[in-house]
Amino acid sequence: MPMRPLLKEIRHNPLLWLLVFVPVVFAAATLRPEAHALLFVLSVLAIVPLAALLSHGTEAVAAKTGDAAGGLLNATLGNLTELVIALSALRAGQYVLVKASVAGAIVANTLFMLGASFLLGGLKHHVQEYNRVSARFQAGLLFLATIALLIPSAVAEADSAAVAEFTQTLSVGLAVLLIVGYALGMLFSLKTHPELFASAAPADHAEAPWPLALAVAVLVGVTVLVALVSEIFVESVQKAAETFGMTPAFVGFVVVALVGGAAEMASAFSGARKNRLDLSVGIALGSAAQIALFVAPVLVLLSYVIGPTPMDLQLWPGAVVMIFLATLTASLVTNSGRSSWFVGVLVLMVYFIFAMTLYLLPPLVR
Amino acid sequence: MPMRPLLKEIRHNPLLWLLVFVPVVFAAATLRPEAHALLFVLSVLAIVPLAALLSHGTEAVAAKTGDAAGGLLNATLGNLTELVIALSALRAGQYVLVKASVAGAIVANTLFMLGASFLLGGLKHHVQEYNRVSARFQAGLLFLATIALLIPSAVAEADSAAVAEFTQTLSVGLAVLLIVGYALGMLFSLKTHPELFASAAPADHAEAPWPLALAVAVLVGVTVLVALVSEIFVESVQKAAETFGMTPAFVGFVVVALVGGAAEMASAFSGARKNRLDLSVGIALGSAAQIALFVAPVLVLLSYVIGPTPMDLQLWPGAVVMIFLATLTASLVTNSGRSSWFVGVLVLMVYFIFAMTLYLLPPLVR
Amino acid sequence: MPMRPLLKEIRHNPLLWLLVFVPVVFAAATLRPEAHALLFVLSVLAIVPLAALLSHGTEAVAAKTGDAAGGLLNATLGNLTELVIALSALRAGQYVLVKASVAGAIVANTLFMLGASFLLGGLKHHVQEYNRVSARFQAGLLFLATIALLIPSAVAEADSAAVAEFTQTLSVGLAVLLIVGYALGMLFSLKTHPELFASAAPADHAEAPWPLALAVAVLVGVTVLVALVSEIFVESVQKAAETFGMTPAFVGFVVVALVGGAAEMASAFSGARKNRLDLSVGIALGSAAQIALFVAPVLVLLSYVIGPTPMDLQLWPGAVVMIFLATLTASLVTNSGRSSWFVGVLVLMVYFIFAMTLYLLPPLVR
Repeated sequence: MPMRPLLKEIRHNPLLWLLVFVPVVFAAATLRPEAHALLFVLSVLAIVPLAALLSHGTEAVAAKTGDAAGGLLNATLGNLTELVIALSALRAGQYVLVKASVAGAIVANTLFMLGASFLLGGLKHHVQEYNRVSARFQAGLLFLATIALLIPSAVAEADSAAVAEFTQTLSVGLAVLLIVGYALGMLFSLKTHPELFASAAPADHAEAPWPLALAVAVLVGVTVLVALVSEIFVESVQKAAETFGMTPAFVGFVVVALVGGAAEMASAFSGARKNRLDLSVGIALGSAAQIALFVAPVLVLLSYVIGPTPMDLQLWPGAVVMIFLATLTASLVTNSGRSSWFVGVLVLMVYFIFAMTLYLLPPLVR
Repeated sequence: MPMRPLLKEIRHNPLLWLLVFVPVVFAAATLRPEAHALLFVLSVLAIVPLAALLSHGTEAVAAKTGDAAGGLLNATLGNLTELVIALSALRAGQYVLVKASVAGAIVANTLFMLGASFLLGGLKHHVQEYNRVSARFQAGLLFLATIALLIPSAVAEADSAAVAEFTQTLSVGLAVLLIVGYALGMLFSLKTHPELFASAAPADHAEAPWPLALAVAVLVGVTVLVALVSEIFVESVQKAAETFGMTPAFVGFVVVALVGGAAEMASAFSGARKNRLDLSVGIALGSAAQIALFVAPVLVLLSYVIGPTPMDLQLWPGAVVMIFLATLTASLVTNSGRSSWFVGVLVLMVYFIFAMTLYLLPPLVR
Repeated sequence: MPMRPLLKEIRHNPLLWLLVFVPVVFAAATLRPEAHALLFVLSVLAIVPLAALLSHGTEAVAAKTGDAAGGLLNATLGNLTELVIALSALRAGQYVLVKASVAGAIVANTLFMLGASFLLGGLKHHVQEYNRVSARFQAGLLFLATIALLIPSAVAEADSAAVAEFTQTLSVGLAVLLIVGYALGMLFSLKTHPELFASAAPADHAEAPWPLALAVAVLVGVTVLVALVSEIFVESVQKAAETFGMTPAFVGFVVVALVGGAAEMASAFSGARKNRLDLSVGIALGSAAQIALFVAPVLVLLSYVIGPTPMDLQLWPGAVVMIFLATLTASLVTNSGRSSWFVGVLVLMVYFIFAMTLYLLPPLVR
């Protein structure tokens, strides 16, 4: 029975019980295609357990293929959910949503996931320590990406055809540069200097990992399911937001980002409670760096292939400021390698300031 | 003779001899209400010793009421002078002055008080060490407040009725959030993790503290006097500034801020000379954090009760940049927990750059 | 034979073989004054070895005059090449080129020279350590200069006659303040706290230094030659840039800055390969600080004497952002006092982002 480990996993993990919403959302999309608010809620409920399965599958394959290849796999497929959701939005030409969700995912991982890990860990343990070399490495990658996102806006102020062309060419150049930087970063952390990242315990489960065949099958099958549900999600999200009175900026930046990262958050928070803060910090900052240096550039390059028009890397100024401040907060906060509950409160509060601002922002301003 | 400790204090502390200007300023305000330049100078000379008495009184009550309650009292009433001056300006509807003095007080404490403490201490001691955990905590609070002050300006560029309403609602939300953050910070530093702040010696005087009755009487009586003198000060300051050829930005940002903080500066500088740099750094950054996370939000909320119209938290862009740079400077400088005279020079020079810029700024630009 | 050490140096250092281009460029400038592209290439080839001789000469004189005076000499004449090139441009009234080359030199030293040193050193040595107190000191000076360059742009947004006058007065004030800060920094590092900078080995050559007479003669003679070649360089650079399809921003910011710093880069890179990273970090950040706090202010003050009109310190916003980010990168990266090859990659990539942006920038935007 090759499926047995999967069924056992589902039985023990209440998050996976939400899988029941996967068939429900497909049925609803066929029967009531106009019920945007309903479809939005159902697709969120369906994506969360699928994302959890996806990250289990990635880890299981990684565990089987050995350290370097496994690390590589984790580093490229760790944000598969975000990538698939963004690809659905990209194909639909919803570039504002793509950019908002990418920016929002960076900020949510850097602030919400990191801050909540510090807070949850700190409520249980008086003071926690973690490997600050690893945190600095991820923060450094994030800082590089932040500069790449910031420079086009900072330099080109005038609006003209020449500037639009400039931004587009520059975006492709920056995308290639960021992917190269990310690849060199993997070379550094997996190959030339792995000992610096030592204490970040890699495997989360003591239980026996899935067989390789099952893991690959889950990876492929669930990716297809996520892609199908994402299409329903992307179609419904904007209209549902209007129904709920949320601004588009808030939806893309906060809601989509938290939905896409739900599975990783579950792992990060559980690591923090178990006093394995290395794991939590690694997931939070590593995931943010991966989105900034791998997912976002790949989306820019893929927009030439699957998008209606090329997409550039230029964000609206408010998003750039938020990413810059989030990266700066993470750099300053992880500098000491120690944490207690109040550090978590500080980081979370920065996130709440951003979320509140976007929630209240009148739509015409964007 | 319950007044004896007060009289003894006055005899030994030359700063308190300036108390003679308190009756003088009231007399002058009655006899020559139009002599703005004179009233400005006299009210400054009267506020400085009153502020010193106020902080003595707060400390004396705090010493009597035990550690936690005393810390709480110090943390809420430590900037009573600034609060009373700002309330006078608030009641007069002078929101530009209120905001400039709040922003100026944050910058003056973070840069001038900190830098001059490093310099004065460093001229006497070759290298000084201080508790950097405590400095980081205060810098973290300041960083949070800076983000709250920065985000509304960064996000809302357009000028319209919708934006004005957005800014007002957001300001109230941010004010509440900052006060909650400040309260949690006190819980952290006084209750759950006091051991991290250990070496910051709390009591400054070896001499016997005042009896409680005297301390409370001084606290109440002097607060009333400060309020009365502040009204004369607020009324005269703008017109006096014109007489002296100072821009309004310079007056609010530099003059009012230095007057309001004179008493704390005296304590911080004396601590630095005695090689108790923990005390100086604690006063400088703690006071800045208190103004940013407690005084400013309280003023926003009180403007609904006592101001002619609601006041928002939005500062002019130059002030936001200065607060951001001041906080960044404090973060970078206090990172090592060591100091020598040149660190003080660097920090002071940043302050002089700001002061010179505001002094030269043509009024129409503001 | 007093010239023998010079000839020996030339025989052993292939970089100095380029000296053959010095007579060639003078000949070409007389015979073909219109061949801008040719003159540009020839003058670059001639300046590089002259700059190398100039820094040898400075070091040789410094070695003879003892520690404090020698340090002072190095600290004032270390960027003589940049100063002479900028003076040529200043006399020609080419203020955009002057400012771009000053800003570019700061960024090139902070990012390119530092990053390439980390990378080259890291490719040979697994992990390298250096004196972080010294790095912090230089980064602190740079941070001060960055604030001085940033504040005028941040505060004065409107364009009017009053603002132009304000900017000019403020620039003179800031220039004086920066020079004072630089002088106090030298007092600190050479006189009151030299032990903090101990491990930064001062002398680079084990071989016998030049006799004083030769060193002074080289210093004077080569300075005259650099001045003459710089004039040809400044005249040809803009038109040559058009021929090569480079934007003026790219030429001033990248090409001129790398040419002016070529000699120091050779020393910094060789230090990094020999695992003397203290030397490399000291040259890179020290040189950037010197340009920001000494060369740039001196140029502002000299513009009153030798320029057609006074020059201010205000840069275009993109340059300010780049200097700010370069300084922040250097601060964050040198915080740990350890480095490996990937740190170099990160820092270099930030530089490549800037260079690529300026290369692609349409001319009309500037």
